[in-house]
Amino acid sequence: MATYRLTLAYDGTGLAGWQRQANGPSVQALVEDALSLLDGRPVAVAGAGRTDAGVHALGQVVSFTLERDLEPATLGRALNFHLPPAVRVVEAAVAADDFHARFRAREKTYRYQIWNGPAVPPGLRTQVWHVPPPSLDVGAMSAASDALVGTRDFAAFQSAGTEVASTERTVSSVRVGEWAPDDIPILRGLDPSAGRLVWVEVRGDGFLRHMVRSIVGSLVEIGHGRRDAEWLRRAVASRDRAQAGRTAPAEGLCLVGVTY
Amino acid sequence: MATYRLTLAYDGTGLAGWQRQANGPSVQALVEDALSLLDGRPVAVAGAGRTDAGVHALGQVVSFTLERDLEPATLGRALNFHLPPAVRVVEAAVAADDFHARFRAREKTYRYQIWNGPAVPPGLRTQVWHVPPPSLDVGAMSAASDALVGTRDFAAFQSAGTEVASTERTVSSVRVGEWAPDDIPILRGLDPSAGRLVWVEVRGDGFLRHMVRSIVGSLVEIGHGRRDAEWLRRAVASRDRAQAGRTAPAEGLCLVGVTY
Repeated sequence: MATYRLTLAYDGTGLAGWQRQANGPSVQALVEDALSLLDGRPVAVAGAGRTDAGVHALGQVVSFTLERDLEPATLGRALNFHLPPAVRVVEAAVAADDFHARFRAREKTYRYQIWNGPAVPPGLRTQVWHVPPPSLDVGAMSAASDALVGTRDFAAFQSAGTEVASTERTVSSVRVGEWAPDDIPILRGLDPSAGRLVWVEVRGDGFLRHMVRSIVGSLVEIGHGRRDAEWLRRAVASRDRAQAGRTAPAEGLCLVGVTY
Repeated sequence: MATYRLTLAYDGTGLAGWQRQANGPSVQALVEDALSLLDGRPVAVAGAGRTDAGVHALGQVVSFTLERDLEPATLGRALNFHLPPAVRVVEAAVAADDFHARFRAREKTYRYQIWNGPAVPPGLRTQVWHVPPPSLDVGAMSAASDALVGTRDFAAFQSAGTEVASTERTVSSVRVGEWAPDDIPILRGLDPSAGRLVWVEVRGDGFLRHMVRSIVGSLVEIGHGRRDAEWLRRAVASRDRAQAGRTAPAEGLCLVGVTY
């Protein structure tokens, strides 16, 4: 009997999110079903981040215990054989007995991708939020994001529907940047008039429901010049969801990694 | 009445290729149907490259004539409204009356993408050929590709099924390279053990049926150390399809651009 740790990448398109759901295939259910097959008994897994339906991952971390002793590399290959190509094990390791992907997580990093231009490159269309022209002011978004860094009450950036003991979270960094098509190898050669990829990377010790997506919705208001940094500061202080920007769509979001 | 030139990007997944087909939606049919709607009469278009089913494009070029005089920007927007998100107009312009996307094309550039590693990143899975470990020797592939540059009879790299007057073509460059996950912004943060993207970019005045894909299939033989540069040289000289490598799958191929 051993505790394992997996790193998963997935394309959330058409998936019901991380958590086991009645209304569609979830990543948790796919992984648990594949593991149960391998271990010959029901296996329950813990995931570091409960990503919503449509949200992607490059580095979701999962922990569980198996009765069988399996070489981690063998386990990874066996799971990739059983899982659909939309979900891949990128790393498998034996972990300490008391390792728990969610409770032991110190920080998570999410990246949000926005296609800012008239035409979304078809190969990226399931991984970006389409924000048509005018151009977003990335400098203004980046400067304003300072208001989000630190230990704050993020109640204004939480969607209703989940009960949490506290709405205080610590955001250690928010970075905003942009890539032209030629900066992205798989788009090299695309006409620059198609637009550019604007990204927001948020790192923190934990996130409320839809917190990253409402941070992004708020920063886009600023990028469009409809709001300013002072507005964002006041929105945080208000603790009122109605004072912040709208929730950006799920498909632009990706759980990049988890640190322990 | 004016002649127009469009630059199209498309995700070829699930499409029957460029050319109008009985057995599924082709890019040509989608564009012609949308233009016919706008012009109130049947419109026929010419495409620079007849990409196969499953092949992608970042810079396919299309020409046609409309009865209506439309601002190019308006035309582009109207087409993007009617076309599915898998096909996007990235540029629209008025062209000289005698412009023809195919006959005037001087060179085309294709890029082929290979995921060389145990786990294909799910977001890239429709845009790469999965070549599992061992690692491809990119240096050997690059050195061997010299045998393909110049004016050659490429009969050994042509699939049966299309009659052509001559199997001589001029390839002006073949470049082979690789990107680690961290070189690809949308994969930044992915565990490097997942693999890397190996790419082959071929530029030439024209290509026979499956020519780029059989060039790639041959270079992968060399990358695996099963064949060497001298074998590739002899395969070219043989003019015999059986002497070259197999045809790499369609999904890794992308028509990057066309020069006039």
